Amino acid sequence: PLPVKPTLLTIPTPQPHWASLQADIEAYLKQTIPIKDPLEVYEPMHRLVFAAPRTAAPALCLAACELVGGQRCQAMDAAAALLLNLANAHAHEEIGQGEGSNIALLTGDGIVPFGFELLARGAGPGSPERVMRVIIEISRAVGSGGLIDSLHMKKSVDGEVESVKRVVEKGEGGLHACGAACGAVLGGGSEEEIERLRKFGFHVGMMRGMAQRALNNEDVEEHRNLALKELHLFKDTDLGIISTFLNFY
Amino acid sequence: PLPVKPTLLTIPTPQPHWASLQADIEAYLKQTIPIKDPLEVYEPMHRLVFAAPRTAAPALCLAACELVGGQRCQAMDAAAALLLNLANAHAHEEIGQGEGSNIALLTGDGIVPFGFELLARGAGPGSPERVMRVIIEISRAVGSGGLIDSLHMKKSVDGEVESVKRVVEKGEGGLHACGAACGAVLGGGSEEEIERLRKFGFHVGMMRGMAQRALNNEDVEEHRNLALKELHLFKDTDLGIISTFLNFY
Repeated sequence: PLPVKPTLLTIPTPQPHWASLQADIEAYLKQTIPIKDPLEVYEPMHRLVFAAPRTAAPALCLAACELVGGQRCQAMDAAAALLLNLANAHAHEEIGQGEGSNIALLTGDGIVPFGFELLARGAGPGSPERVMRVIIEISRAVGSGGLIDSLHMKKSVDGEVESVKRVVEKGEGGLHACGAACGAVLGGGSEEEIERLRKFGFHVGMMRGMAQRALNNEDVEEHRNLALKELHLFKDTDLGIISTFLNFY
Repeated sequence: PLPVKPTLLTIPTPQPHWASLQADIEAYLKQTIPIKDPLEVYEPMHRLVFAAPRTAAPALCLAACELVGGQRCQAMDAAAALLLNLANAHAHEEIGQGEGSNIALLTGDGIVPFGFELLARGAGPGSPERVMRVIIEISRAVGSGGLIDSLHMKKSVDGEVESVKRVVEKGEGGLHACGAACGAVLGGGSEEEIERLRKFGFHVGMMRGMAQRALNNEDVEEHRNLALKELHLFKDTDLGIISTFLNFY
């Protein structure tokens, strides 16, 4: 009989997607947040972290790090710290709306310092200056001049497009800008690369935040185009994963 | 006429007291927390910081720094960060008891990252490793394994001396230990000096926390004696200010 010719299976190359970065960060946090005594402190901490709605800002931190030539792991602690800060803000927002509990309040208070601890602990020899810069970036983005201000404004927003935009600027815009800038800093990017990626992140955040609030499509498209423009500097690099932040699927 | 002989005024040398260190920290914070737009964010931030009840932990940070030969200013950001974290915990405790407001909740969230920002910003060239270590120390003392755990336990405390002691250990004990250790780290202390001062701080915190809760005087006296013992290593140094932490006036 004729020898059977083996069939070549062609499997389509999987398209890398930012959701895979998000999965990496969650796996890291599952492993990193201790489950230990006192269980009544650590168990809700796990729950709170994984219950918060996802944003693309932490994943963008990893993507930016890789884009400037760094390793994903170099930005993992910063991405985790960002995610922890966002989870805390979410818990407090729920408490502000009468949902949530005191346990969630205390738990949130625990995860914010834990994020900074991760960052400081992860600083290898030689890199503390970069880590220090990232601590400042994250503190500002989540602090009174950033996310907190956005949450304040949100309470008094009157539905006017302009005031909603300001909320998104300080919220999603600033957080994604921070994520991208931190990733670029930790990946060893140049000042120009850091600033381009910061702007890219800002527009990604604006685009996603406005789409979520069903603001008009023109604005969303405008931010997408502005974001794309910032990637021009990296045109000789693999833009596969970073460009998926511009899609909603 | 005979020339008037000038009278020599003898002014008693003022005894340095830890309250003067506390005043220094407050002056620093008044100058450092910006009063700027948005006022509805920054104004309550000022109020919250200065309304919180005082503990000796931040002042101990400065005193320990000086004791190991450092300059007070080297430990100022750490002392401020500690004070900000304690002010936040206080605000959240009030909210947990149904007092306080959502504004206080958000404000507290703003001051914690601001504390870490101060620390990271203040790291001069050459010192980032020490600052990094201090960030880890403070994160742990105020986080889920420390102050947060203490606040949790406080809710279910049954009035038994032993359970109150555990609350004080994780609370005042841990916080004063952290303050003293951080000061020693930043002042350039040796590992032995750091660990001695950490123990000194722990006993100072225990002593003060237990006295505040009117626990029996024997325990308070025992911690005072244990604290004094730790100072033996520094017997050739000016113990003027550090020993005032052992007094209640």
